[in-house]
Amino acid sequence: MPQNRRFILRRRPQGAPAREDFELVTEQVPPLADGQFLIRNHYASLDPAIRGWLDAGGNYMPPIPLGDAVRASTIGVVEESRAEGFSPGQWVMGLNAIEDYSIGVAGGFTQPIDPALVPSVTNYLSIFGAVGMTAYFGLFEVCEPCEGDTVLVTGAAGAVGSLVGQLARLRGCRTIGIAGGPEKCARLTERYGFDAAIDYRGKDEAALSAAIAAAAPEGVDVIFENVGGIVLDAGLMNLKLGARVGLCGLISEYNTAPVGARNLWQLIVKRASIRGLLVADFVPRFAEGAEAMGKWAAAGKLVVDEHIDEGIENTFDAFMRLFAGTNQGKMILKLA
Amino acid sequence: MPQNRRFILRRRPQGAPAREDFELVTEQVPPLADGQFLIRNHYASLDPAIRGWLDAGGNYMPPIPLGDAVRASTIGVVEESRAEGFSPGQWVMGLNAIEDYSIGVAGGFTQPIDPALVPSVTNYLSIFGAVGMTAYFGLFEVCEPCEGDTVLVTGAAGAVGSLVGQLARLRGCRTIGIAGGPEKCARLTERYGFDAAIDYRGKDEAALSAAIAAAAPEGVDVIFENVGGIVLDAGLMNLKLGARVGLCGLISEYNTAPVGARNLWQLIVKRASIRGLLVADFVPRFAEGAEAMGKWAAAGKLVVDEHIDEGIENTFDAFMRLFAGTNQGKMILKLA
Repeated sequence: MPQNRRFILRRRPQGAPAREDFELVTEQVPPLADGQFLIRNHYASLDPAIRGWLDAGGNYMPPIPLGDAVRASTIGVVEESRAEGFSPGQWVMGLNAIEDYSIGVAGGFTQPIDPALVPSVTNYLSIFGAVGMTAYFGLFEVCEPCEGDTVLVTGAAGAVGSLVGQLARLRGCRTIGIAGGPEKCARLTERYGFDAAIDYRGKDEAALSAAIAAAAPEGVDVIFENVGGIVLDAGLMNLKLGARVGLCGLISEYNTAPVGARNLWQLIVKRASIRGLLVADFVPRFAEGAEAMGKWAAAGKLVVDEHIDEGIENTFDAFMRLFAGTNQGKMILKLA
Repeated sequence: MPQNRRFILRRRPQGAPAREDFELVTEQVPPLADGQFLIRNHYASLDPAIRGWLDAGGNYMPPIPLGDAVRASTIGVVEESRAEGFSPGQWVMGLNAIEDYSIGVAGGFTQPIDPALVPSVTNYLSIFGAVGMTAYFGLFEVCEPCEGDTVLVTGAAGAVGSLVGQLARLRGCRTIGIAGGPEKCARLTERYGFDAAIDYRGKDEAALSAAIAAAAPEGVDVIFENVGGIVLDAGLMNLKLGARVGLCGLISEYNTAPVGARNLWQLIVKRASIRGLLVADFVPRFAEGAEAMGKWAAAGKLVVDEHIDEGIENTFDAFMRLFAGTNQGKMILKLA
């Protein structure tokens, strides 16, 4: 069996992940047991959710054990199989780990995929993966925007946010995006079709709230929240009556002690709601989401950006882009 | 026209209201215009919501103007009328102010009430008023508890909370109440029928969360939230999948800079929601709520406590009981 470079969790991060919290080790792939197959991972999906899995507490998934490879969605090719339904040469996708080789089991989370159906096989990690399905079901099923609604998207230049803005626009909504820096804000309006872009940098909560109010004088019907902290608090100050906040992520709070949402009283004033969303709940409906997204993409109505860094040795730097915001599109690591 | 003692807002409170923020003044009641009637106020409802109306920002109601009497629901008797449908001797209820006399207008918020229908006319400010309707519609319509659910009530010894706990129990739920001090906790289980009571005093968030976990090892389906701060954060750590948090109030944060909710990420983990509730939305259905509550009360299934302090000169002390938690039941001020 081949050598396997694995990106191992050595120590649980305190605050921002440090390089020393991880180690790249080389191990021998163990021989396959019956029902198993060997996957050569080609791409790994780097997502903010991974940060939560690094902590001891666990969340909707158990924590990644110390000494284990860091869990991630990957796509790759079966190299060897002792499992029915999986044969060498076949492309598969699953929740595996950041490593050259993963071992899949029949009946597990790893499923065959067909690269011929998509412009790039990496699309299975973006538009047709958790990111795309989060945008689709999170917006349409959790936030329930109506035509003519004003939709505020935070983390709007990110993988999920950029899709949410475009989907809301396709639904006939007015879209406002919040992102960090003038370049990203230009991307929001020029590339993703947002009606307005707000740069959160250099703004405190009051300034951010004023900027949202200027872009949406009558308030917002929907917030698709990826950021938390003062960004969420500023959004809460601009809710319309009966507004819905879909809580997808709180990336500003993953690496620091949370500042917390101090404007929850606005939920009472506006009889509004915050609802947490997790794409896993919509797995049974992924085919429906993928079909809709695929049609829009094929018709040129949906821009899908992927930011692909190369080499397992660059995992840490690539992962940290998510928190620095230096990625432009869905963050993917090319492993082979 | 008679002399009118009025409890005036002189200065907007910074943090906790101070005695000097208010002044009791005596004014002459102006002569009635056509369409007006004069109300001798007998009782005023003292509610945490009044604290929000004292601030400059306003919320779902405009702020009380400086120099104006403090807005409150009152019940009283018509003394003189130049309005059709209102005659001297008639009992009325409305959103007026803390003052001996208020002037009502036909077609306004003031409506006739019938003291013969209730054990005590003050019940129109408790079980049949905003407090009772908040408990009824807030629990059943916003939190949607099912039989067998575990319902956590914070501020559980308060006017709304004590009713919510009893209503949840009538729905067949297991009820856990959080209150301050051993006496109140004893009231929760002995008087209001809560299955478990937790004293928040002396507990930090972790201890409070552990206490909730001990009382509800499988988590809670519903939180009826009146308190906010670490009490809410501790509750969020104990949500079941798909739990609903009905946000009725945040009394711990009205007089201080809010600490904020730091555990919102639990909404994602548990796909749970927080929804703000305001009883005003249910005004068209008050008759339905009052009928249901009245039947339970008449059958001895609902304990309704009222804490009545006397004298307009004691308004400040009576109002501040709400924040010190020294009232036992719905806080009412007897004016005549």
